[in-house]
Amino acid sequence: MIGRLNHVAVAVESVEKASAVYRDALGAKVSAAESLPEHGVTVVFVELPNTKIELLEPYGENSPIAGFVAKNAAGGIHHVCYEVDDIISARDQLKATGARVLGDGEPRIGAHGKPVLFLHPKDFCGTLIELEQA
Amino acid sequence: MIGRLNHVAVAVESVEKASAVYRDALGAKVSAAESLPEHGVTVVFVELPNTKIELLEPYGENSPIAGFVAKNAAGGIHHVCYEVDDIISARDQLKATGARVLGDGEPRIGAHGKPVLFLHPKDFCGTLIELEQA
Repeated sequence: MIGRLNHVAVAVESVEKASAVYRDALGAKVSAAESLPEHGVTVVFVELPNTKIELLEPYGENSPIAGFVAKNAAGGIHHVCYEVDDIISARDQLKATGARVLGDGEPRIGAHGKPVLFLHPKDFCGTLIELEQA
Repeated sequence: MIGRLNHVAVAVESVEKASAVYRDALGAKVSAAESLPEHGVTVVFVELPNTKIELLEPYGENSPIAGFVAKNAAGGIHHVCYEVDDIISARDQLKATGARVLGDGEPRIGAHGKPVLFLHPKDFCGTLIELEQA
C-alpha cells in the first residue's frame, strides 16, 4: 500500500536557524521559508536527490506542532509521510486491521494541496505517520 | 554535501512485531530479520520505491539502542542517514563549522559495510544524523 517516502518532517523553534544548519553545515539546497497559516506552520523544504526534509516552525496560536516544539527545544523528527495511491482505500484497509486514524478519519487537504491523514503513533512503532495521496 | 536519504531508522522492542505492522497493515515489502552482533542490533529493511526504513531491535547486552528502546516502549524514530561522497571531507567540513561528531570522530564500518559517522543531535535540529559514504 505505502509508496514513496514523500518527506521527513523536523519540527524546530526557528526555520531560519534550521535552514542555516542544513544549508551551511550540511550543504543542502533549501527553499525560502513559506508560512501556511491554515496549517499553523512555517515550512522550509530541504531538497535531497530522492526525497525531502521539511523543516516546520510553529505559526500562530493554535499550531499543531507547538506542543512538540515546547517539549523538544532543540527540535526533533515530528513525522514521516508516505504516499498512497488512494487515500480512502488506504484508510479503510488500515482501519480494518484495527489501526487508529487521527481526528475524524476524513482526509484533509495538506500542505501540498493533496488529501492527507495521520495515523496513531502507538499503532505504528511510535512513529507519527502522514499518508498523502500521490 | 549531503546526498540521498539512505534510510530512516526506527528503533523497536521487537522487529518481528514491527515487521508485521509494515507488512500487514502498511502493505510494504519487508526483508527477513538479520542480526548484526557487531552492531548490537537485529535489523529488518522496509523497501520503499525511493529509500528504506530500517527497523532496529536491540541485540546483546551492549546494544547502542537499548537505552532508546527502554525510554520509548512503543518504539520511535532513532536516526536518519544521509549519503555523502567523501566521509572524511564531509567530517572535516562539519567540524570546521563547529558541529560535533560523535565518538572519536573516526568513521566506523556501518551495517551496510560502508564507513559511517554520527553527528550530535543538538547541533542538527534535535536529529541524530548518520552519514554514510555512498
